[in-house]
Amino acid sequence: MDIYEESMMLHKQLRGKIRVNPKIDLHDQHELALVYSPGVAAPCKAIEANPQLAYDYTIKGNTIAIVTDGSAVLGLGNIGALASIPVMEGKAMLFKRFAALDAFPICLDTQDPDEIIATVRRIAPVFGGINLEDIAAPQSFYIEEQLQDLGIPVFHDDQHGTAIVTLAGLINAAKLVNKPFSELKVVINGAGAAGIAIARMLKCVDDYAGEICTPVKELLICDTKGIIHPERDDINESKRETLKWSNIQRHTGTVRDAIRNADVFIGVSVGDLLNREDIRTMATDPVIFALANPTPEIMPDEAYAGGAAVVATGRSDLPNQVNNALGFPGIFRGAVDARATRITPRMKLAAAYAIAEFVREPSREMIIPPTLNEEVAWKVAKAVKQAAIESH
Amino acid sequence: MDIYEESMMLHKQLRGKIRVNPKIDLHDQHELALVYSPGVAAPCKAIEANPQLAYDYTIKGNTIAIVTDGSAVLGLGNIGALASIPVMEGKAMLFKRFAALDAFPICLDTQDPDEIIATVRRIAPVFGGINLEDIAAPQSFYIEEQLQDLGIPVFHDDQHGTAIVTLAGLINAAKLVNKPFSELKVVINGAGAAGIAIARMLKCVDDYAGEICTPVKELLICDTKGIIHPERDDINESKRETLKWSNIQRHTGTVRDAIRNADVFIGVSVGDLLNREDIRTMATDPVIFALANPTPEIMPDEAYAGGAAVVATGRSDLPNQVNNALGFPGIFRGAVDARATRITPRMKLAAAYAIAEFVREPSREMIIPPTLNEEVAWKVAKAVKQAAIESH
Repeated sequence: MDIYEESMMLHKQLRGKIRVNPKIDLHDQHELALVYSPGVAAPCKAIEANPQLAYDYTIKGNTIAIVTDGSAVLGLGNIGALASIPVMEGKAMLFKRFAALDAFPICLDTQDPDEIIATVRRIAPVFGGINLEDIAAPQSFYIEEQLQDLGIPVFHDDQHGTAIVTLAGLINAAKLVNKPFSELKVVINGAGAAGIAIARMLKCVDDYAGEICTPVKELLICDTKGIIHPERDDINESKRETLKWSNIQRHTGTVRDAIRNADVFIGVSVGDLLNREDIRTMATDPVIFALANPTPEIMPDEAYAGGAAVVATGRSDLPNQVNNALGFPGIFRGAVDARATRITPRMKLAAAYAIAEFVREPSREMIIPPTLNEEVAWKVAKAVKQAAIESH
Repeated sequence: MDIYEESMMLHKQLRGKIRVNPKIDLHDQHELALVYSPGVAAPCKAIEANPQLAYDYTIKGNTIAIVTDGSAVLGLGNIGALASIPVMEGKAMLFKRFAALDAFPICLDTQDPDEIIATVRRIAPVFGGINLEDIAAPQSFYIEEQLQDLGIPVFHDDQHGTAIVTLAGLINAAKLVNKPFSELKVVINGAGAAGIAIARMLKCVDDYAGEICTPVKELLICDTKGIIHPERDDINESKRETLKWSNIQRHTGTVRDAIRNADVFIGVSVGDLLNREDIRTMATDPVIFALANPTPEIMPDEAYAGGAAVVATGRSDLPNQVNNALGFPGIFRGAVDARATRITPRMKLAAAYAIAEFVREPSREMIIPPTLNEEVAWKVAKAVKQAAIESH
């Protein structure tokens, strides 16, 4: 029985992977009167008089909405709201497992960005944070941006979660190959939500606080048509926007042209893209992040055969898994504990450094801590909370 | 320390009364791969191919949204979404306690009926049923009606839950005083959501199946201005609508005029409205449902002093509590187990009879089973499921 058959069996047996439980039992009429009518009128009135007290008297302060429209689910594409539920339930399990947060799936029967925005605004009262999940780019950029004034953190994990864990791994990879971060020439293949978020983070775009953010030296972004450059007339606004700070020397060509003499290749694209010959054209000790799932852009064996110094993938059965689960639980934990109203660039950076620092002595086998390490999220939470206090 | 102070302390200590928990622990990489990437792709694809499978592989079949706009919360009025959260959490506790359903509060930051409708449609995929709660009339009528085509049961508990439990009590009260149900003259004081829903149920309006629904003989509905009659020019559409089947003899006057010679008084209005002298003007063995909370329209002592045969209230510290908790958990349990697409009149009637039958020998002390009786909901669920199969 393979993993998929076993997963089907388990899902059928469980009929849903999360449950909503009371925190206390209702033994008698008195307890009922405390948690419901008439006693419940007291916290209601207190919150009506002072809305901030919702954090003290309700689930708000510990509860995250996992919001999706099912338009870009895992590697499955646009499968819609209903079919996305199992993924969102899994994510809710991770929130609880790693950061003791209560998360609930909100799977929307609309893929219209403005309807998604309006809906999130309306359901916001009961939540302390909004995790946007598996929403296709470029709509996801717009949705996230429009919701930044909501008063609670709104964070598109496919963008920033991936970027944060990638940055953590890259910090350690640079140490391992003994190259200054600020000297790295990086190629990102894939210009969707994750690719562009990684690029922005590596170049300290947005308002990443200058004094604590180190940009890489050179950055090229490629999509399926090759290197993104100003003469191309087939690129959308979010890709064109990147040219303000990437591909400064206006290179043209394919991804193969792009990686020649590059120090780092980061793939968030499709499997089986590169081979050992391609790796040989890169600079000495090349760093490979082949994050396509389930098949990486190049398998670690093949990359090492081409001279790679270190390889990370998105797979749990290989070393150095870039897994968002290292990021989002602790990021939201820190953000809600600080009652942050946004996840600021400083908070994202703090999360990346906290993850990176978890690896004392980077090696080929470990530039990223293992996904199931229980301490990472709490370390991330602490760093993010501190950064939230500094940046709010 | 009174109940309100104790409730405040408990709410502060708990910081929310419900939690979202994984059904299984994630011990290792293999379990993670089963519930999340990559294994989760299997149930996702299965549901994409056949949406009905969401009931087998996700939380949908056991999960209820408790939707409110905070416009008419308990006796507190329009306190808004945030301040309503403690009530909705309490309701979620009852869903789990009595019917093993997972319910989650959706407290909406809008009181526009069309926005509420649109939002419920969009969030529907993850839910097996929608419990509309504490939404002011007459908007609540419109919202519920517009959502009946959603494909999952949408049920406004303040209307139908109260009506169902009231009917259950009245069936037993009629037995106790030895009057045929079809001969009862009933006065309802209060023409909001609950009052009108009770009235419709007692007159078998809607498509209550004729062969199983027995209408009472006469019915008068009063609001704060007195008896609703055709010459009044100060009544809204939902009140005028009731004149098709209530007050057939076109009575006018106050609520005091209305109850003269009536067999049954049902108050869903305000406290301290009637006294023993008023009860003395009613027919022999009058039945009193004084459901205003926390202060009934008349206290049982006073009503009995006026000759009442039996009194029910909304209070947990008095006998015969008309508590919706006797209805909604079992109603939703039965409905989702039958995969009903609506709560039909036949299902509501089945719930009322199931609750009524729980009392073998009606007495002054018991025409309604105790709220904390654990078996009621399961008996209701069974009856509602059967009725759902018959009426779908």
